[in-house]
Amino acid sequence: MPSYTAPTRDTRFIVNELLDLASYGDLPGFQSATPDMIDTVINEAGKFCSEVLAAINQAGDEHGCTRNEDGSVTTPPGFKAAFDQFVESGWGTISAPEEFGGQGMPHVLGFAVEEFISSANQAFGMYPGLTNGAVSALIAKGSDEQKALYLPKMIANEWLGTMNLTEPHCGTDLGMIRTKAQPNGDGSYAITGTKIFISAGEHDLTDNIIHLVLAKTPGAPDSTKGISLFVVPKVLVNDDGSLGDRNGVSCGSIEHKMGIHGNSTCVLNYDGATGWMVGEENKGLAAMFIMMNAARLGVGIQGYSQSEVAYQNAVAYALDRRQGRALTGPAEPEAQADPIFVHPDVRRMLMDGKAFNEGMRALALWGALLVDLTHKAATEEARAEADQMIGLLTPVIKGYGTDKGFDVAVNMQQVFGGHGYIREWGMDQFVRDARIAQIYEGTNGVQAMDLCGRKLGSKGGAAIQAFFKMVGEECAAAKGDETLGPIAEKLEKALGEQQAATMWFMQNAMANPNHLGAGAHHYMHIMGITTLGLMWLRMAKIAQENLAGLPDDKAFYEAKIATARYYAERFLPDAGALRRKLEAGSDNMMALGEEAFATAA
Amino acid sequence: MPSYTAPTRDTRFIVNELLDLASYGDLPGFQSATPDMIDTVINEAGKFCSEVLAAINQAGDEHGCTRNEDGSVTTPPGFKAAFDQFVESGWGTISAPEEFGGQGMPHVLGFAVEEFISSANQAFGMYPGLTNGAVSALIAKGSDEQKALYLPKMIANEWLGTMNLTEPHCGTDLGMIRTKAQPNGDGSYAITGTKIFISAGEHDLTDNIIHLVLAKTPGAPDSTKGISLFVVPKVLVNDDGSLGDRNGVSCGSIEHKMGIHGNSTCVLNYDGATGWMVGEENKGLAAMFIMMNAARLGVGIQGYSQSEVAYQNAVAYALDRRQGRALTGPAEPEAQADPIFVHPDVRRMLMDGKAFNEGMRALALWGALLVDLTHKAATEEARAEADQMIGLLTPVIKGYGTDKGFDVAVNMQQVFGGHGYIREWGMDQFVRDARIAQIYEGTNGVQAMDLCGRKLGSKGGAAIQAFFKMVGEECAAAKGDETLGPIAEKLEKALGEQQAATMWFMQNAMANPNHLGAGAHHYMHIMGITTLGLMWLRMAKIAQENLAGLPDDKAFYEAKIATARYYAERFLPDAGALRRKLEAGSDNMMALGEEAFATAA
Repeated sequence: MPSYTAPTRDTRFIVNELLDLASYGDLPGFQSATPDMIDTVINEAGKFCSEVLAAINQAGDEHGCTRNEDGSVTTPPGFKAAFDQFVESGWGTISAPEEFGGQGMPHVLGFAVEEFISSANQAFGMYPGLTNGAVSALIAKGSDEQKALYLPKMIANEWLGTMNLTEPHCGTDLGMIRTKAQPNGDGSYAITGTKIFISAGEHDLTDNIIHLVLAKTPGAPDSTKGISLFVVPKVLVNDDGSLGDRNGVSCGSIEHKMGIHGNSTCVLNYDGATGWMVGEENKGLAAMFIMMNAARLGVGIQGYSQSEVAYQNAVAYALDRRQGRALTGPAEPEAQADPIFVHPDVRRMLMDGKAFNEGMRALALWGALLVDLTHKAATEEARAEADQMIGLLTPVIKGYGTDKGFDVAVNMQQVFGGHGYIREWGMDQFVRDARIAQIYEGTNGVQAMDLCGRKLGSKGGAAIQAFFKMVGEECAAAKGDETLGPIAEKLEKALGEQQAATMWFMQNAMANPNHLGAGAHHYMHIMGITTLGLMWLRMAKIAQENLAGLPDDKAFYEAKIATARYYAERFLPDAGALRRKLEAGSDNMMALGEEAFATAA
Repeated sequence: MPSYTAPTRDTRFIVNELLDLASYGDLPGFQSATPDMIDTVINEAGKFCSEVLAAINQAGDEHGCTRNEDGSVTTPPGFKAAFDQFVESGWGTISAPEEFGGQGMPHVLGFAVEEFISSANQAFGMYPGLTNGAVSALIAKGSDEQKALYLPKMIANEWLGTMNLTEPHCGTDLGMIRTKAQPNGDGSYAITGTKIFISAGEHDLTDNIIHLVLAKTPGAPDSTKGISLFVVPKVLVNDDGSLGDRNGVSCGSIEHKMGIHGNSTCVLNYDGATGWMVGEENKGLAAMFIMMNAARLGVGIQGYSQSEVAYQNAVAYALDRRQGRALTGPAEPEAQADPIFVHPDVRRMLMDGKAFNEGMRALALWGALLVDLTHKAATEEARAEADQMIGLLTPVIKGYGTDKGFDVAVNMQQVFGGHGYIREWGMDQFVRDARIAQIYEGTNGVQAMDLCGRKLGSKGGAAIQAFFKMVGEECAAAKGDETLGPIAEKLEKALGEQQAATMWFMQNAMANPNHLGAGAHHYMHIMGITTLGLMWLRMAKIAQENLAGLPDDKAFYEAKIATARYYAERFLPDAGALRRKLEAGSDNMMALGEEAFATAA
């Protein structure tokens, strides 16, 4: 059976040293996040995830969720008990607003804990995780009454929430949804339609489930401009907050999926269910994007959460399994064979995992800090700056993070050889669970178009220019240094590739937008590579400063510098190849018509 | 439910036009492979695979194999009936020697059909597929008596065969095996031990199963120099070929795997089972490598067989599914949305699939021709030349082919968005089935070391020099041409990267063999990229020649040229990035000790 240990030392390094959370102590919510409190939250949450949630992960995969004859859904063995413990400890409330009963601490901490939850048990983590998205939408767009009625219980995880977007015939293109919302005349609506792929759509963890549902009011435009958002509780809620009648929404079936079996992915049938509009009519898409942006960062975390737990198990296996001898001569001559850890190709895969996981952790938590600053920074300008940067980074964190996270999970499985393919070892679950993150909350192709079609050109390219300036300046500052210089030089070269790719888009995509579409995925990966490069340059710098002070855990900081070097030499070179592909444009990609793709007999 | 159509037009193009099989008509076995016979075999086999084997593929995944209380194993519904049809049609005997009842046709044809079988149903194909490996070993090393007793029935697939190498504590490092072979005094041996991961180890398809087993005789050296090979039938065979007593080998359990559920992967317990030595004592490794090399090419075919069937289904989905609008304006304004086929990012994934699958098909069948020439070419020199080239290409076909084949299958699943994650659509099975090919018959890390540690330096680098010369000359010849020139130039650049990487190994790996290990996987991928580039240059050239003659299927040849261009611009650039990674060497990769990989709390 696989094991998991929350990497709390690295998380504390990122939160306390890289992001220096203490320096934001004068901002609202940050005061309570004292260094002691940070350490306590990280360590206790890590313990809970490692001990309680990881223990039921494999059983969740084996048993999955069961839809009973009455349409109710039973979660896998142990999920309900663990969830009760989870709620009691308040691990879902860390960064929720105090106004509604949350702990009001920075998102940095909430996200840090989300990683642990997801590594330990991604399917479990999705139950409270999806609720966070629904909560964000209600906070931003809900009426005071709706907020009062739903938010405290959702934030306390007494009730959970869902996001209902997809229908059988449409997912990405939400303008085509058919679910109807008919006014009842009393301010409520009758919601009728079928939603699919609804994560945590029905379950036995909470007494009520608060569905946020996209639907169309009568006569609404036949496009995304005709979508409205509704709150539709599974059980109607009386004005005093007590539960009333069962609403007209039911689980038609549970999907059979490649992975995340512990989460109930439902077909939900709405049969005149009573719902209330959230925000303005026909403005549902904007509300949906609030849910979505929160969810996308969460999915980015899922990407490296699986590569992290897969990495930990691959390290343990590589140290335990003995096959063959080191190329430089027997490492343990008295044993019949050396641990496979000695083989460079095994070390390559482990170092790839280490460099990616630690880099992504830094990036995701920096992203979380930007989310905090978007709301809480002292000046309007600082808030706008943070908002601009996180808008740019979100598709990269989601798209690059989950693409590469999946690749790393696959390579960690590879370390196990044949045993990696055997279910009992648990590595195939990590791969299967990781796979979904490239798909949901907007496929990675959609992320790439969000980055290149919307974010790059927004406000005259202000966001990407700010990114270039930031990376460029940090490279320039590091270049003279003996340790940091070689890393910075390689990063600067990769940044140059990204700048050239950006320029190519500017010069070519206006005339033919297919050139943008053809290069968007490449661009997203280039930017993922440079962004993680920036994280590694920053981490190496801090490690270097710490080493000057002869710290207790010298080895930790030395490993940071070695891994930064490894990242620079093993990840950054791809930026150049990706730029060449991007600059090939769309002509040959789009040259062939459908007949050329048919299989000719 | 997914569908499959054997790509017989493309196979005929490769066999008849690219490889020009007719031009080898004077070689033994090639005479019977007339153009008519070739077309008949390809078309009829394709039909059988598309209609019979593909239809039971998904059921095989769902039901898997069942071990009954008496230790017998039941294959999935439909497998036995399909297998009987398979045997009757003789699809497993195409390129087996006529001497033992085979059809004696070129391996090119046998491999072409193997692709169809594997695309249609990889788990099914492994039953006869593994038998081919066992047959190769018996042909090469078996006594006349063993050949007479086993080969005709194995070749007719009346009995199937297996390869028993792995034990719980060893796979790659076969020197550590513990299975014992005790002489019985009558020329036979009593085999005792446990073998794991035995594909097709026990089943209900045939009355007998012929196991080829690696074991150690008493006092054998404690290394790969102490391994012997034994033939151990499940049911003992009387001298007249009739079946006798049940032998002491039994299936202890069936492994629970990520995929290929339709194949029974067994733990086999040998409890004093009677076996006979194949070849010489302590020379089992050489015999094993004969099985292994045949199997590795077969696994290379599996790699692209799954990306091919996944591609076909992704194309169908992309043409059917409507979401959003073309970036250049609505393609079908009267419909609510355009097919996702119009989106460049979807087209990118499909073109990647097309370019890889067709390129790999060309490479694998060229490899099969080289296998034929190794045995049948007219001169000793030509045989040695073919042997040298296929030795070099085998790890590339297996390693690069399955790595990239898996990536492509994953991308074809991505085309389906959320539906790709739902089991009913069948895409996740292709991904899960494809995954094993990177692992078994020597992990791809082992392939990389075979290529770089053994094949590159063999005979003073003769094989790789011959490869460089061949690719270089074909590039030079094409460079002046308007159509082929740009493709050849890009290939020449990639070849330059490979040559530089080779040189770097020569200059650095002697002093530190870890440099070789650290770069081997990169090198294998560089060589996969250039080799497929060579295939595309050759295919484009033939297409160009055909187009000059105004052929009926002009579109087929035009698509070849467009795809060659796409390959050149989208695949070849990676060679440069890989070279830079390779030249980074092993210092940073190997810098950190085990404590740096431990998860610190």
